[in-house]
Amino acid sequence: MLTVCLAGTGGTLPLSDRWLTCCWIEDGGKAILIDCGEGTQIALKQAGCKLSHLEMLLLTHFHADHIAGLPGLLLTLGNYGKTTPLTICGPKGVQDVVQSLLIIAPVLPYPLVFQELSAENAGFSCWGDVQGSCIPLSHGVPCLGYRIDQHRKPIFNPQKAQALGIPPKLFGRLHSGQPVTLADGREITPDQVLDGARAPVSLCYCTDTLPIPEIARFAQGADLMIAEGMYGEDTMREKVQEKGHMLFSDAARLAGEAGAARLWLTHFSPALEHPEDFIDGIQEIFPDAVVGTDGMRIVLGQKTDTK
Amino acid sequence: MLTVCLAGTGGTLPLSDRWLTCCWIEDGGKAILIDCGEGTQIALKQAGCKLSHLEMLLLTHFHADHIAGLPGLLLTLGNYGKTTPLTICGPKGVQDVVQSLLIIAPVLPYPLVFQELSAENAGFSCWGDVQGSCIPLSHGVPCLGYRIDQHRKPIFNPQKAQALGIPPKLFGRLHSGQPVTLADGREITPDQVLDGARAPVSLCYCTDTLPIPEIARFAQGADLMIAEGMYGEDTMREKVQEKGHMLFSDAARLAGEAGAARLWLTHFSPALEHPEDFIDGIQEIFPDAVVGTDGMRIVLGQKTDTK
Repeated sequence: MLTVCLAGTGGTLPLSDRWLTCCWIEDGGKAILIDCGEGTQIALKQAGCKLSHLEMLLLTHFHADHIAGLPGLLLTLGNYGKTTPLTICGPKGVQDVVQSLLIIAPVLPYPLVFQELSAENAGFSCWGDVQGSCIPLSHGVPCLGYRIDQHRKPIFNPQKAQALGIPPKLFGRLHSGQPVTLADGREITPDQVLDGARAPVSLCYCTDTLPIPEIARFAQGADLMIAEGMYGEDTMREKVQEKGHMLFSDAARLAGEAGAARLWLTHFSPALEHPEDFIDGIQEIFPDAVVGTDGMRIVLGQKTDTK
Repeated sequence: MLTVCLAGTGGTLPLSDRWLTCCWIEDGGKAILIDCGEGTQIALKQAGCKLSHLEMLLLTHFHADHIAGLPGLLLTLGNYGKTTPLTICGPKGVQDVVQSLLIIAPVLPYPLVFQELSAENAGFSCWGDVQGSCIPLSHGVPCLGYRIDQHRKPIFNPQKAQALGIPPKLFGRLHSGQPVTLADGREITPDQVLDGARAPVSLCYCTDTLPIPEIARFAQGADLMIAEGMYGEDTMREKVQEKGHMLFSDAARLAGEAGAARLWLTHFSPALEHPEDFIDGIQEIFPDAVVGTDGMRIVLGQKTDTK
């Protein structure tokens, strides 16, 4: 299961009633943060995210509204007693950019580990069963979209196991993919009791970008797609085209093409005071679209998650 | 007259109910900002400060809680259409530190002008009748206290002018320090109609620092002294001594020694949830002390300002 919290939903600059877009992904006391604009540390605390759980920071790109909160967050993690490493992933040059910002936070009580990502080096491990990947987006500067997948065990069939006379205490080992030897000497392999693979729990996060078709392929089958909608009106096409952004309708169309289970829109222009006004038209394109609000959260991969 | 707004009152890190300490000083559509921590651009907007008026930024020092909001603020000024220069003053190295932070805001539509200040180079011009000066504070890193003085015209005595038969339309010129020649050929010099100098309108701003005696001399006669009080309890002496900060009682004692008209306390520790709880004891030391709150403002130098 992945708990996902959209702690902020703004683009360009922080507002008193809308934090800058960022996303918190957590499972088992370990957390990933995507992007860290000015004020993100406050947004996370308001949304109930435990900063002490942070293991990995993924930066989409180096525009200030996605990274300016980094020195403050890193210092606050130190003040909270962090001593374990923090991994920071981002486009080419991530280490130089972060080091440049850290002129005002030169001493941290924990190590930073940098990982440069690109089309050629797109995969990365988060922890345990959680893996990440990225694609280059189209924003005028190097910018990455991220996907987080939590792999799940295949489906275990207890009827098959019982028919083979396997004691229940060995079910767990077989479900984990290990063969077992029974008391009568028979060796049982996992494929004898498993019904097939389950899709991973998946989140896809894409801001800031033009609506390139690669996004739909990258987000294929995601349980949750979080994508930017800079404006709700299609009349803003020229403006977003020039600045390298998407409209609500672009995100909805891509979510549909991806076969995503749901779409959360985010990264609203400061000029867009009431993004919720545009949801009806967007749900005609993709019914499971919602307009993001600061602090909204979901647990993906629960048994009750029928999407 | 100087309008002064204490847009934030926190130290160390921004909180959801307390912005980081910063101060806005404005007159005649021109403004100075002292310090710019994470979120200061939001604090200023909440406090009703017009960012488009900003002419000069004074940095006390380069700890993140005093400067991390700089890239965001500078970009927002650009988004608001600023094209005129912004002067940035601070301790030695100010240009290098700001340039390092601007790796995430490399292009601004207005020029930055840097001015390095120190004990040897302590005075600077703001605009017109507004002058600034600074002193080195004691905070473990180079750190400056600031004083802003608005010079006022001397006192004009209309009775003297009338006795000399000067037409009222010439009063203004004499008040500005220029001699005039009357219709009958007499030359009148300003000293014939002026009653003497008036003290400037003065603000003194000192964070972060140990309570060094130089502060009392620097703040002498200020209409408003803004000074840090990291904690209200005198039992925190050892902690502030180690970190280079002041207690409420230190600031109150220094304000008394300075003969300041009033004291605003600011830069509260995040652990100090209710700074107002300590005001009674502080007013015993300096009666005109108040605990700062985000957005509080005053106009100094008004006729009704009897302090």
